Amino acid sequence: MLRCELSPRFYETDGLGHINNTVIPKWFETARTPIFKIFNPELSLKQWNLILRKIDVEFVAQTYHEYPVEVRSWVSHIGRTSFTVSHELWQRGEMTATGTAVLVYFDYTAQQKGEIPASCRAELGSIGRD
Amino acid sequence: MLRCELSPRFYETDGLGHINNTVIPKWFETARTPIFKIFNPELSLKQWNLILRKIDVEFVAQTYHEYPVEVRSWVSHIGRTSFTVSHELWQRGEMTATGTAVLVYFDYTAQQKGEIPASCRAELGSIGRD
Amino acid sequence: MLRCELSPRFYETDGLGHINNTVIPKWFETARTPIFKIFNPELSLKQWNLILRKIDVEFVAQTYHEYPVEVRSWVSHIGRTSFTVSHELWQRGEMTATGTAVLVYFDYTAQQKGEIPASCRAELGSIGRD
Amino acid sequence: MLRCELSPRFYETDGLGHINNTVIPKWFETARTPIFKIFNPELSLKQWNLILRKIDVEFVAQTYHEYPVEVRSWVSHIGRTSFTVSHELWQRGEMTATGTAVLVYFDYTAQQKGEIPASCRAELGSIGRD
Repeated sequence: MLRCELSPRFYETDGLGHINNTVIPKWFETARTPIFKIFNPELSLKQWNLILRKIDVEFVAQTYHEYPVEVRSWVSHIGRTSFTVSHELWQRGEMTATGTAVLVYFDYTAQQKGEIPASCRAELGSIGRD
Repeated sequence: MLRCELSPRFYETDGLGHINNTVIPKWFETARTPIFKIFNPELSLKQWNLILRKIDVEFVAQTYHEYPVEVRSWVSHIGRTSFTVSHELWQRGEMTATGTAVLVYFDYTAQQKGEIPASCRAELGSIGRD
Repeated sequence: MLRCELSPRFYETDGLGHINNTVIPKWFETARTPIFKIFNPELSLKQWNLILRKIDVEFVAQTYHEYPVEVRSWVSHIGRTSFTVSHELWQRGEMTATGTAVLVYFDYTAQQKGEIPASCRAELGSIGRD
Repeated sequence: MLRCELSPRFYETDGLGHINNTVIPKWFETARTPIFKIFNPELSLKQWNLILRKIDVEFVAQTYHEYPVEVRSWVSHIGRTSFTVSHELWQRGEMTATGTAVLVYFDYTAQQKGEIPASCRAELGSIGRD
């Protein structure tokens, strides 16, 4: 399982006094950085080779500004050309959101998806829920 | 159907040269403003009475910076305490993303959900897909 | 003078119940779109030829979520390779922020600044305070 | 001097392939968190007592996505009711941006500024450039 600890930023709050909902997909994207590195170790924008097909987020409880959060992530499904990352957001011992993201191995130049390379597949496979 | 036309902003692009995925939930939230007004005509933050339970977004095609977009939204389901808004994102005659949002009628002071008032229900019911 | 009307978005508020300060530079950037088009009519990211050297923002009054805003912009100085855009943010007849941005005509491939072309200079010159 | 290390996030890039200019004020705000805590140790939104009067940012070099950044901050001026924080953004041994922020000690209920308490003044005074 990948653990990504973040400190909520003041500008990430909204007028209701908690973290705005649109921030959670940003934190989940951030938590996928180690997965981006599997496919693109230098995080080179010119060699980016993943595209997002789908996300969902379930808001379980309000997330607050004052306390650190942890995003826990694991690879919950691996297909031929795509895979699914599952996320949980935790704050003060409580799970405040869950979500998934489906990513596709993608050639931006040819604008077409491709088969996930075996080495990447093996690395993805090692990121379990624990 | 609600139609919300937006001009993509430069800072909404990302290093891959198109609109970043995390921007789409923000545009969809923006497109729900007329729905917020059904429940809170003055958009008063102190009287906010909706909470987001769930969102999903499917990315169908890349969305670009150079051209205006239109978010088309309608109410696809009304329950006792919650309802679902469906969204489509269109650019240059092509649908580039779809999504849904489940909103709950919520009393922030009591921290509990409540039954959607009849007048709001009627207004929601009038926002069909056309 | 350029006038750019915007509707504040819910996610642009912060926990203090007004528009977060970090949003104003985003609105000012957005208000410069017609100026970007002078240099790059198609807004093509591959042909981008301006770089930002400096911004400042003075926050005069709180900006609220509920009411539309207008950014008023004009070109307040034109140098050989750079120029300054001045901005005012207005809401409900009150000026809530001012700012400036210094932009440089820049060749991203050569990574060096250049002289502003005469035709662009003429167009910039026509955007006065009124 | 305060040192705040951040990992640039993918969504903070823009179509030019570097960190978007509007992100820097957000990082600088984030770097001021220890200063917010001087005035409001619990970071309680209900007891917030600082307001931003002015910011400026000078963009010295492009900031990239792939490498961590460090924001270095210090208190460069203390007045009766306001003070100035100076910031530098560093990446890979190079300073890529500088900026300042003027903050005012502010009573949001009374909507008026006040004199900085002596204890806060002392703590601010201890955050020098080194």
